[in-house]
Amino acid sequence: MNALGKHLLLELKDCNKEVLDDLGFLRGALLAAATESGATVLGESFHQFSPQGVSGVVVIAESHLFIHTWPEHGYAAVDIFTCGDSVQPGKAAEILIEKLGGKDHSVIEIQRGILGT
Amino acid sequence: MNALGKHLLLELKDCNKEVLDDLGFLRGALLAAATESGATVLGESFHQFSPQGVSGVVVIAESHLFIHTWPEHGYAAVDIFTCGDSVQPGKAAEILIEKLGGKDHSVIEIQRGILGT
Repeated sequence: MNALGKHLLLELKDCNKEVLDDLGFLRGALLAAATESGATVLGESFHQFSPQGVSGVVVIAESHLFIHTWPEHGYAAVDIFTCGDSVQPGKAAEILIEKLGGKDHSVIEIQRGILGT
Repeated sequence: MNALGKHLLLELKDCNKEVLDDLGFLRGALLAAATESGATVLGESFHQFSPQGVSGVVVIAESHLFIHTWPEHGYAAVDIFTCGDSVQPGKAAEILIEKLGGKDHSVIEIQRGILGT
């Protein structure tokens, strides 16, 4: 199977609620996950919602990392989309699960861009 | 089922190859899809790759729209992630499929943040 991209969808439940509402912490966590997994950061955009919640993206040369948080539910949705072999998306996932304290988490992996033979 | 977010994953194949390498066109397409589907745009980040390909995100108050293109394969990966009832993600998908000319396309819908009862 020849897929152009690997897309990890993380469902992080029972996270640290304070962390989920801390834009600075989440920005640092996504940037650390990107660089420590071998990605090249191109850009970022983070937004704090009222009364709570954060959305943020780190655009990497190899695609992107995204987070949306619902502190009131202790929940975060995280996407790690990579292409090529230079990045280890599983390592990025491990870093974010550990930093956010998601005691109940699952990871779905989807192949994107499966081309015909 | 009580899900916080709706996530559409679009696989767009056999697209117009020129369009897939045109950052200005793709930026306009994502912004149009966001606003015409009822979303509130908060930020954006687009990048042109060499020799070809574009990555771009539009962050919306209701989550995000993302595109990664491989013009050499006529392929684009598009994500439309929304929360709440004010945005019509299906309409955003229709707009992008039409604008990119994806003759061979599929849409996967994933519920994100399914909470316990």
